[in-house]
Formats: sequence, C-alpha cells, structure tokens
Amino acid sequence: MESIAVITPRHNYQIVFGSDFQGLCDALKALNNNYSKIAIISDDIVLSLYGDELEKSLKSLEVPCVSFAFQHGEANKHLRSMEDIYAFLIEEQLDRKSLLIALGGGVVGDMTGFAAATYMRGVDFIQVPTTLLAQVDSSIGGKTGVDFKGYKNMIGAFYQPQLVYINTTTLQTLPAQEFSSGMGEVIKHGLIVDIAYFEFLKESHKEILERDHNAIVKLISGSCKIKASVVSEDEKEMGLRAILNFGHTAGHAIERLMNFKLSHGACVGLGMVAAAWMSYYEGHLSEEQVRRVEAMNTLYELPLYVEGLSIDQVYLELFHDKKTNHQQLNFVLLKDLGSCYIHKAIQEDIVKNGLKKIIC
Amino acid sequence: MESIAVITPRHNYQIVFGSDFQGLCDALKALNNNYSKIAIISDDIVLSLYGDELEKSLKSLEVPCVSFAFQHGEANKHLRSMEDIYAFLIEEQLDRKSLLIALGGGVVGDMTGFAAATYMRGVDFIQVPTTLLAQVDSSIGGKTGVDFKGYKNMIGAFYQPQLVYINTTTLQTLPAQEFSSGMGEVIKHGLIVDIAYFEFLKESHKEILERDHNAIVKLISGSCKIKASVVSEDEKEMGLRAILNFGHTAGHAIERLMNFKLSHGACVGLGMVAAAWMSYYEGHLSEEQVRRVEAMNTLYELPLYVEGLSIDQVYLELFHDKKTNHQQLNFVLLKDLGSCYIHKAIQEDIVKNGLKKIIC
Repeated sequence: MESIAVITPRHNYQIVFGSDFQGLCDALKALNNNYSKIAIISDDIVLSLYGDELEKSLKSLEVPCVSFAFQHGEANKHLRSMEDIYAFLIEEQLDRKSLLIALGGGVVGDMTGFAAATYMRGVDFIQVPTTLLAQVDSSIGGKTGVDFKGYKNMIGAFYQPQLVYINTTTLQTLPAQEFSSGMGEVIKHGLIVDIAYFEFLKESHKEILERDHNAIVKLISGSCKIKASVVSEDEKEMGLRAILNFGHTAGHAIERLMNFKLSHGACVGLGMVAAAWMSYYEGHLSEEQVRRVEAMNTLYELPLYVEGLSIDQVYLELFHDKKTNHQQLNFVLLKDLGSCYIHKAIQEDIVKNGLKKIIC
Repeated sequence: MESIAVITPRHNYQIVFGSDFQGLCDALKALNNNYSKIAIISDDIVLSLYGDELEKSLKSLEVPCVSFAFQHGEANKHLRSMEDIYAFLIEEQLDRKSLLIALGGGVVGDMTGFAAATYMRGVDFIQVPTTLLAQVDSSIGGKTGVDFKGYKNMIGAFYQPQLVYINTTTLQTLPAQEFSSGMGEVIKHGLIVDIAYFEFLKESHKEILERDHNAIVKLISGSCKIKASVVSEDEKEMGLRAILNFGHTAGHAIERLMNFKLSHGACVGLGMVAAAWMSYYEGHLSEEQVRRVEAMNTLYELPLYVEGLSIDQVYLELFHDKKTNHQQLNFVLLKDLGSCYIHKAIQEDIVKNGLKKIIC
C-alpha cells in the first residue's frame, strides 16, 4: 500500500498503510534505529484484541518487548493514568533508547505520545491507531496530552511520532458508534478543503458503512492526506492548522458540558452544523448547502441536535477553550462547501443564532 | 552588562545580566512579544523576597500579572505540585499567548519550565534564576521536569526559555550552604573544559566567598559561557552535552540514596572526586591533580566523604540513572584538568575503586 509523508520542523515521518501487523515490523526495520526495548501501551480492550498478534509480529526484531494496558475510555485520560504508565516504564527499566508503541484509539495515542514526550525528557514512539477517529485524525500531527479538571487536552505537548502505521483491518472490529464518531473528522476534512472528497463520502456511503475494504482504504488515505498536508505546513497551530478546528469550538464546549457522555464525533458533528449555520448568517452558505451538511451528519448517524443545554451556557463555555486567545473568540467558518476561513471577530448574535439551530 | 547567546534548533535566546529587576522589564520589551498575561511562578521564600520588586518593575509593560508560589524545596518537585500550578493557570485564565516567569532556584525553574512546556501544549516562559546553582546551570539549556518516585527529573521535557535574566544581586541573600551547592557546577565547568577558569576559582576564592560584585559577575558569566556553548552544540544530549554530567553519575546515585538530604552541589562534589580518582586509575590524572580537585571542594565547603552508604549500594544505584542506555554505564572522566572524555565501557573495579575514596 501507499504511504504519506508528514513534514515537521524536527523530523519527517511516514504514514504507512497495511492490512496486518507484519507490515509494521517491516516499517520499523526500515527506520533502522537500534532500540533497546519496546513497550506497547494500550487499553484493556484493544490489548486483548491485538496485543498478542502485534507482539508476535515484532518478534523478528529481536528487541525485548513488554506491554501495558490501562482502563479504556476518555474518563481515564488524566495525569493519574500517566503516573501508572511512568511507573511501568521505570519498573521495566526502559531507557532513553527505548521505543513506545501506542496501540489503540485516540486516548491511547494521546497518552502514549505524552508519555514518550515526557519520560526521561523524551523517547521515540510510534502510533498504531486502531479506531477510525485515531487513524484519520489524532494519530497524525503530534498533538499529545491528557485532560485536566474537565478541560480536554489541557496538559500536553507537541511531539511527533517516528511513524504512523495504520492496519486497516482493525476497523472491522470497531463498534458502529465509534465508527460514526470518526466520521465527524472525515466529514470535516471534506468540508474545509476538498469538495470532491465530501462528494465521495455521500456517493460511497453504503460501501463505507459496510466497511468495504477498497472504500475504507480510499476513505482513510484521503483523510490522512488532508490532515498531513495541513500539519506539514503548520505543526504548532500558529496559522493554517487552526482550520482543523472547524466544528470543534462549539463541539468541545458541548463535549465538556455533557461531561463527555456524547462521543467526540457527535459533538464535532453538532459543532459543524452550528458553524455551517453561522456561515449562512455571515452570507457565505446557502440554506441548501447547510442542509447538505446536515444530511451528511444523518447519513453517518451523527446528531443534529443536543438536549438539556441552553444557548447561553454553551456560549459562555466557548471562552474556556484553550484556543481562546486574549478572550477573543475565533471561529472557523465555511466560505463554501470545501473551503473555509478563520473569523477572528465573530459577533455574539451570529454565534448564538448558530447555536440555536442545534440546541433543543 | 554583557549578554550571552544560546543557540538551539528551535530558537536562539539571550542570557542577560543585570543588577536589578528593571533590566528584566527592558529585556522583555526587546522580545517584542504581545503577551496576554504574565504569571510569576515561584516558591514561598523567593516570592516573599523578590515578588513585589519584580511585579513593580513589570508594571510599565501594561500586561496583567499574577503570581503563584508553591512550597520551597526539592521534596515538592513532583507532579502534585505541577497540578497546583496547572490549576492556578486555568483559574487565572492564562491562554496560549501568556508568559510564565520562573522566579527562583533550580526547582522553580525546572517546574515552571515543565509547566510552560505542557500547559496547553506549550506557552512561552523566561528564567529568572535567583540561586547560584540556577544561574550557572539549571536555567540554561532547556532541561525541565519533576522528580518521580525518588528518581530525579524522570518526567520532563527539553523546552527552551525565551530569555534568561540574571539579577546578580539576588545572590546577596543566598544562604552559604546554597551558595556552596552552586559551586559544585562551577567547579565542574572549569574541570571539564577550562583550566584557566578553574585557576580563577582558586585564586579569587576569597572575593568569591565574600560575594564581591566583580568576582561574582566574572564567576557567573564564565560559567554561563561554558554551559551555553556546550548546550548550543548539542541541545538534546546526543553527544557533547553529556560531558556536563561529569560528577553527576555517582552524584545522582548518592543524592537518591541519601533521600535528597545532601545538597545537589555536595553530591556533585562527591561525584567529581570519585570521577577524578577513576581518571587517576585509568592513568589520566596524577595523584597530585586529584588532590587539587579535592582541595577545590574543601575551599568551597563541599564534602570529600559521605557516611552511611556502601560501595555496592552506590554501584547498583548507578544503573538506575536515566542516562543509562542499554544497561551500559557511561562515565565522564578527566583526560587532564580542564579536559574530559566519555568512557563508554568503564570496568566495574575502576568504578568501585573510585567510589571507595568517597565512602567512609
């Protein structure tokens, strides 16, 4: 299969696609680093599904390999779990020449990446994402970290992996709700920069939902290409990378206010609909175009409304986002389907009118 | 006063010297960054000594400024204290465009730097070291972090400040024991690369111990130059920077085994004497030269012996240093006074014979 390059100031790396874990072993050999030890970090569910298979495929590297799993779920993405990982790494005597492998979804990737960024002031790591959300989004671009006091990813680091390895067959075991959560980011990629990709999502929705191999490969590589190209231009979100926040400003606020009971993709889906309406009120999208955004949400089982929140409550919560500079609200809006811009002085009533459309 | 440049892959910065805090305000203005808010992070003792003076001198920046102090001491350099800092930063709504100022000794600098490296995945910070140890060593070079389960600096990041500002008058209030702790690193700098600087420490010891202004400025700037030049060549300790570990391999082991009851400088002093004897056994130093190292320790009130430890105990503990790769012991030894090398395959009996000289 193909591979995609990610370019960052410190180092460049590849996103490599495969349909088993043997390909990971080959990709690791190609890195040609002489690692002293490997620690696979995962959660309890993913490790029981793929741990043995991965360890077996790494055997020919002839490097000692240990594995550690914490309890699955975003609720465990905090500093206490990080301490458990650190304690494990110390106990197993991993040193500065060791390698961590993040095997799992976004939570595993974010935490393992942050462990790699901070254990002994930094060791190498690679991402082996096993969910759609992680494959098309969180494993690419070096954002790592944990939640803190209810704030998502408040503590973390920009730290790039040596390699992202995507075994597309892992999606076959992914629960439907998690698959649809990943679709939030996929739809976003189409909306912000690539109308043809957005159209593909509509036309091939049956094959995608059936997880047809060819459709899935096209889906993932298309999203990875978009994410990789944005990140390569702006690793640290000084400018361009901020467009990836489309749907996330309101999405994160809702996610926090709902105590993370809604999936990330569902919240992003809601945020995209709200932002599409704001784009309509700003005079960029037609109502028909906004309806196409809503229809795409429906196609992939993402919600159009959220219950139990007030507009004022969500509006206030927007200012607690860590991307809020100088108490100034920035919103990524659409100029057109497949094209976006950053609105740096959006008016309160436009934001609230957009939010009104998703709150019932 | 003069300034010294530190060159790193991400950005270059200056070490600026002054005899008050007003100079810091000027240096900050010269950075020309439009910060949204400033948080001074310090410990209880240093903040009560210099907090008001620093805040007052920053007034003309017209940027909101808040301050936070945690309890002083290495015993508080852990993730729990980091959580207190994070909680404060969130409560005070510091955002990605905010600046942290580390006002204090090495513990404050390491923790504030790590907070800056990890709060919202990284905000700017500057170092304002107030102890000799921090001024000549820990504030320069971007090593940040906390201790974990008794292991020094086990969790951390390489993260460079925007500026190091040294107000030399802060040394006037520094307790004698802390001053002598800083001298461990100062002596080290002379021993590893600069015999003339080592001689200056001997010849001017009276003025230095009396903290004569001119002698202190020469002392600090001399050490900063050495540290800056080593760090500029090798930020992440892939090669050259490792020479700064002279005296630290055994020093850190003793520090841990003594539960941090001995000062860092005392432990480094002991480690340097042990390493000097190892250099003697390797045939590089004469006994007379080792005696000169010991005499320098004595001149600056650093110990020559430690009680209550066994050689085997210290030897085993050496392997728990985070710089130990592949279970291979690396030792920085002296080729001559003012010249060093890294011994990558030192024999057990030479290490133990060196340790024997400092253990009674």
